Amino acid sequence: MTTTPQLLPMAEPTAAACCAPLTREAIAPDQADLLARKLKALADPTRLRLVSIVAASDGEEACVCDLIEPVGLSQPTVSHHLKILMEAGFLTRSKRGTWAYYRLVPGALGELSQLLDVTASR
Amino acid sequence: MTTTPQLLPMAEPTAAACCAPLTREAIAPDQADLLARKLKALADPTRLRLVSIVAASDGEEACVCDLIEPVGLSQPTVSHHLKILMEAGFLTRSKRGTWAYYRLVPGALGELSQLLDVTASR
Repeated sequence: MTTTPQLLPMAEPTAAACCAPLTREAIAPDQADLLARKLKALADPTRLRLVSIVAASDGEEACVCDLIEPVGLSQPTVSHHLKILMEAGFLTRSKRGTWAYYRLVPGALGELSQLLDVTASR
Repeated sequence: MTTTPQLLPMAEPTAAACCAPLTREAIAPDQADLLARKLKALADPTRLRLVSIVAASDGEEACVCDLIEPVGLSQPTVSHHLKILMEAGFLTRSKRGTWAYYRLVPGALGELSQLLDVTASR
């Protein structure tokens, strides 16, 4: 097996020292917690569509007024999903005039896919 | 913006035709459902650690007897998590003698990270 670039902290040496040897270190528990939280924030069809619509918008930014109709939900529900995506670090929000604008955090999804690649070899 | 390779089916033309134009198509609803299900299966610290231990094992395969101690849970609980990972297409299971062996599905995590990359541009 080729060596995968290690972006994750090493697990404690004793963490997986049960019976069969590992050929490389598994993900550390605290890193698994962090990654699980980020995945959970994305693991919803509406939130995936919201992220995708923002990403597909000009400048990777979209007004909340442009996000409601495509997903077919009420504004409070859409705002709730957007809040979860902001808290997980995928979107940022800025207010201009009446409307809130949501922008994709550069590299946030790319970082997540890199973490997945490191969690398992390709 | 550069053109991202499109691995996802196009959304219906009217799906996101609210106000501001999109620079490319957003993820289609049925593809969002599928991706959300896969992400949900992984979005748990124990399951991430199990996948990672299997991936780090010789031949990307591990006996269930080697998975219990590292995650510090009972065998039924570990088996429950492994079942979810199998149903989501990340692991396969084979029985040899007394023990069940879990093997990483080649490319399953890589495919997921590609889908994430397509959901948003990097």
